[in-house]
Amino acid sequence: MNTFGRIFRVSLFGESHGRAIGVVIDGVRPGIPLSVNDFTEDIRRRAPGAAGTTARREDDIPEILSGVYKGHTTGAPLTILFVNNDTEPSDYQMFKDIPRPGHADFAASLKFLDFNDPAGSGHFSGRLTLPIVAAGVVAKKMLMLPISATIKEIGGISREQLGQEALPDGGIEETDQASDASLWKDVLAEAKSKGDSLGGVVECVVKSVPAGLGEPFFDSVESVISHAIFSIPGVRGVEFGDGFRAARMKGSEHNDPFEPAGKGWAKPVKNGAGGVNGGISNGCDIVFRVAFKPTSSIAASQKTYNFAEGKMTTLNVPGRHDVCFALRTPPIVEAMTAIVLADLSLLQ
Amino acid sequence: MNTFGRIFRVSLFGESHGRAIGVVIDGVRPGIPLSVNDFTEDIRRRAPGAAGTTARREDDIPEILSGVYKGHTTGAPLTILFVNNDTEPSDYQMFKDIPRPGHADFAASLKFLDFNDPAGSGHFSGRLTLPIVAAGVVAKKMLMLPISATIKEIGGISREQLGQEALPDGGIEETDQASDASLWKDVLAEAKSKGDSLGGVVECVVKSVPAGLGEPFFDSVESVISHAIFSIPGVRGVEFGDGFRAARMKGSEHNDPFEPAGKGWAKPVKNGAGGVNGGISNGCDIVFRVAFKPTSSIAASQKTYNFAEGKMTTLNVPGRHDVCFALRTPPIVEAMTAIVLADLSLLQ
Amino acid sequence: MNTFGRIFRVSLFGESHGRAIGVVIDGVRPGIPLSVNDFTEDIRRRAPGAAGTTARREDDIPEILSGVYKGHTTGAPLTILFVNNDTEPSDYQMFKDIPRPGHADFAASLKFLDFNDPAGSGHFSGRLTLPIVAAGVVAKKMLMLPISATIKEIGGISREQLGQEALPDGGIEETDQASDASLWKDVLAEAKSKGDSLGGVVECVVKSVPAGLGEPFFDSVESVISHAIFSIPGVRGVEFGDGFRAARMKGSEHNDPFEPAGKGWAKPVKNGAGGVNGGISNGCDIVFRVAFKPTSSIAASQKTYNFAEGKMTTLNVPGRHDVCFALRTPPIVEAMTAIVLADLSLLQ
Amino acid sequence: MNTFGRIFRVSLFGESHGRAIGVVIDGVRPGIPLSVNDFTEDIRRRAPGAAGTTARREDDIPEILSGVYKGHTTGAPLTILFVNNDTEPSDYQMFKDIPRPGHADFAASLKFLDFNDPAGSGHFSGRLTLPIVAAGVVAKKMLMLPISATIKEIGGISREQLGQEALPDGGIEETDQASDASLWKDVLAEAKSKGDSLGGVVECVVKSVPAGLGEPFFDSVESVISHAIFSIPGVRGVEFGDGFRAARMKGSEHNDPFEPAGKGWAKPVKNGAGGVNGGISNGCDIVFRVAFKPTSSIAASQKTYNFAEGKMTTLNVPGRHDVCFALRTPPIVEAMTAIVLADLSLLQ
Repeated sequence: MNTFGRIFRVSLFGESHGRAIGVVIDGVRPGIPLSVNDFTEDIRRRAPGAAGTTARREDDIPEILSGVYKGHTTGAPLTILFVNNDTEPSDYQMFKDIPRPGHADFAASLKFLDFNDPAGSGHFSGRLTLPIVAAGVVAKKMLMLPISATIKEIGGISREQLGQEALPDGGIEETDQASDASLWKDVLAEAKSKGDSLGGVVECVVKSVPAGLGEPFFDSVESVISHAIFSIPGVRGVEFGDGFRAARMKGSEHNDPFEPAGKGWAKPVKNGAGGVNGGISNGCDIVFRVAFKPTSSIAASQKTYNFAEGKMTTLNVPGRHDVCFALRTPPIVEAMTAIVLADLSLLQ
Repeated sequence: MNTFGRIFRVSLFGESHGRAIGVVIDGVRPGIPLSVNDFTEDIRRRAPGAAGTTARREDDIPEILSGVYKGHTTGAPLTILFVNNDTEPSDYQMFKDIPRPGHADFAASLKFLDFNDPAGSGHFSGRLTLPIVAAGVVAKKMLMLPISATIKEIGGISREQLGQEALPDGGIEETDQASDASLWKDVLAEAKSKGDSLGGVVECVVKSVPAGLGEPFFDSVESVISHAIFSIPGVRGVEFGDGFRAARMKGSEHNDPFEPAGKGWAKPVKNGAGGVNGGISNGCDIVFRVAFKPTSSIAASQKTYNFAEGKMTTLNVPGRHDVCFALRTPPIVEAMTAIVLADLSLLQ
Repeated sequence: MNTFGRIFRVSLFGESHGRAIGVVIDGVRPGIPLSVNDFTEDIRRRAPGAAGTTARREDDIPEILSGVYKGHTTGAPLTILFVNNDTEPSDYQMFKDIPRPGHADFAASLKFLDFNDPAGSGHFSGRLTLPIVAAGVVAKKMLMLPISATIKEIGGISREQLGQEALPDGGIEETDQASDASLWKDVLAEAKSKGDSLGGVVECVVKSVPAGLGEPFFDSVESVISHAIFSIPGVRGVEFGDGFRAARMKGSEHNDPFEPAGKGWAKPVKNGAGGVNGGISNGCDIVFRVAFKPTSSIAASQKTYNFAEGKMTTLNVPGRHDVCFALRTPPIVEAMTAIVLADLSLLQ
Repeated sequence: MNTFGRIFRVSLFGESHGRAIGVVIDGVRPGIPLSVNDFTEDIRRRAPGAAGTTARREDDIPEILSGVYKGHTTGAPLTILFVNNDTEPSDYQMFKDIPRPGHADFAASLKFLDFNDPAGSGHFSGRLTLPIVAAGVVAKKMLMLPISATIKEIGGISREQLGQEALPDGGIEETDQASDASLWKDVLAEAKSKGDSLGGVVECVVKSVPAGLGEPFFDSVESVISHAIFSIPGVRGVEFGDGFRAARMKGSEHNDPFEPAGKGWAKPVKNGAGGVNGGISNGCDIVFRVAFKPTSSIAASQKTYNFAEGKMTTLNVPGRHDVCFALRTPPIVEAMTAIVLADLSLLQ
């Protein structure tokens, strides 16, 4: 399923090593100012670079094919295209017979049989997160809510362990990927030196969320956010508010007491629910965390199976890869969240 | 959204304190033997009882309204109805003004304003999980895969800490709710004596999964399972395979080496991915864990706000409630999983 | 597919000869006054009676199972149930082997094989239009637009031929089914005397339609209306505005000139487009016509095949049937139209 | 809504005067041989040319962006792109203020307000039928059923009136657009000489249809076909089998008697139902007709309104236009039908 959303609908197209990839967005309100420059910052945050990143060069210049006229959205479907400049399918041919451990190679060949295109993981590639980031930029413009995803941990080392204190408002700090790569530079360097990779945890906080979003029974806020987030390659877990810790708490600890909020009004104060009760936003910040596994492509030797020859073999994945893909994911997590909330807002 | 699924589609109807609730199931194959007795066991596992449960009496006898003829499914939409016997809306009237901390009362009143029906949490009630369990029974008959959800922890005490060893095949044990309530009887009794409640962790394992299920980009196996699971009231987190632990592992640890599986074939051995790579089932067991928060309704005093009078107040939720709702959730988790996999199977 | 609509979603359940049938409606706005009496008039218009109708007794009392609290909609899914009082499956057993010409018996048995429930055509029955009429009542309350469907022809005899002039505003007259049956009583009586049946044409006009409804490319106003209308049993054709006549016109005849409409505004005057251009409502009345085939169950002898015995046979469908089902369809056509427009309005 | 279908899903993108348009197709089976040449014939049939067509030059070379590897479909989403070579938005600027009678200009400006892109009707343009034709080619390869749409009438003159007899098998003849333009050349020439345009009727016949397609209640075969067909610009009516004529028939005339079909089997013989009973294909040919209005852009003078100046004006639509767009529609009708049936087949 290449499409997500009911009214604000996002449809991806293309493959990582074909000529182009892109996204079509239905449900965009007419009259939103939009230009190519609006995409620059989030695309930069997702781009490879610095310590923890792949060397593959990606220009990633968006081209708006439809839906914008004289600098404003028209209300017609908005299409954004990215031309692929760096397509060397030969890199990937070998993984058809010798699947990379931890990678989608094996499962894809079981699903699509001999017809699977091995180039760059085809439609499963992390490169498809680029048009998602672009769609997220449009969704953020629709929503106008502050959405911020931050790296909380890399390789098991938390931001706090590195001497950064959580901010009083719930932990959103003004950081970007470059400085995150600096902050964890030692742990990243060590993994790189061993040809290994690292996982990480990202936290996303949405502020000023209107109460009442969410369409239970099945489309609870958590349901649709987790659906979107688990489609990002490499996600292993999603938790809201107190998350797995809540399972170890008593009701009297976890329940959120109301406190007066002025003018005959009150609201929950601890926000252990992460901003959602009964599947509906309760007016508090939406807070969730995402666990990313370590990048599966690593330079170090791994045991795998050569299906063509029917015997075990040793694989060193050639070339360039992210030491820690999680470092690049905050704009992707923000984009998915914005897409979900834009859709829920239109369902109101 | 009351409906879930694309081909095997489940639509819930009714409210917990109206005359009846039920479910309509589209996409059922004709010719499956089905009778009311098939539902008995899973309904019993979900029912209140023993130590950790509410005293509310629920008969929960399913009535098949359509879709079955002479003991076999017809292929037409299958409708299952449950009459509500125990409907005392007066119990709940007070929560309209004085919302229970941690409960959906507050969010629902923000969404639906004065028109919200406070009775039994209306459409958000845990009682709606009863028709889900019924739909799960039908889905299990379609799938014929062993799906088993088990309590792993209650109140932070794991099954292993209570002296039960994990089974070599990955932890599925032949237990049922009654014996789980016995196993954790001390921790349950203590919480009950204080008018408090407990959370828990449930693990679900699906064996013999065919490879190739899942419809990336957006409908990865993890996406649709988490979507379904997060619609169960009280879920705070979902993780697959190594889950949040994977974020703290190195690629060389987490990656799953292939090992020979006979006849020129091989498969991953550690299953840290929980049976899914690139969003597609890889032929290993699907394994995921679910964090349930403690029941929000507790007898102990809590601070909340009286919105009618505009001042803080103290609330003791009257009457009967589960000490640990998580104890009743394994058949619900199994049902949601079966519903998702039945739909993915039909999309193949 | 038992469900129609994206936001204002209608899901049917049950079978014509099971214990009950009904409908679940998602997307109802909270706060709409609604009681059982609101359904009386449209249910009466659909009911059998007078000259052209079946003798089967249907009480058709709606029961609101959920979604209404203290006389107002709550915003939660609204469930309406109709108990079936007159269920004699034995009437229909024979059609399993000896399909009625023109009826769904044959196609259903090909789709569902031996498991098809022959009783009352199961899920294909015209009885399922009863909950649709009920859902239409709710949709009309959401929309508050005048929607009126009228019989234009019965058995090839038009209203005009019977001496009734079209009204200047486009043909909506204050008629009801009873008087229609009187108007065409001679042609109905003749068909009945021969054990035969008649078809008819219904025209539907929606006034005061806001401009801008419709979601091209695929969800043009005509697309979604025709989708809904063609799900009514017995429909053979749908045409908008000038319809099939437009195919015989020149552009200079069919094109709609604009004329001044006061205050610097103008609008099309002839409305040959039936209120829709480019798939979007243009502010004129939406006008379409529906062709209903003659009722397929007739008393007169017909040749058919006995599949059990493998030979031709003669069938007289026993008992009671509508001489002209089309007479009962105006409230069904209105309901489908209201459901479609309510959904399109929410997509705006 | 830019997307159509549940499993075999087609999503359009782009605008007629942007840089490119295209289509993404989900649900394509892996292993189907597919190359650019497969699209040539249907694209040619849709192209302008000969007597009744516009002079606008369209190269219409498809580019396969994704989903094909070594000449076979991979099972991943298939993307087909068409670069627009002839984009002169200035042609269309004037219609923003002075809407063409009968055209979508007016309705679009009401929906999208000042932000509507007037160029080439933007997303409503007939040019979007080009990627639909491409998607239809893929759908036909999935289905492998003979689908044939034929011009039956142009300007009210039927094929029979021009001396061509219907073929005994139901009217499918080996014609193409070029010869159709020759057949009706006099009527086309006369309309062209007056700067006027003509409508037409297209009939589509699908042979060898498997019985059992269709998903009632709402997704009857007629419902989904008419939904798709009414999204083609300029359609005013759709009728199946006997169509509007059925409304004037008696049950004893319209009902289809069964006749022996060998080996203890029988089938309906007259096919007045157009191959569908109860919303389900019955194994006979699916037959339906489509009414196309005359092209709305004509050279002859028309009265319209200048909304900028607030007064009536006379408009001669400049330049080149189809005298009869209907001539180009048979491959579009076939494509839509193939897309619908491919989806219904996968839902079986």
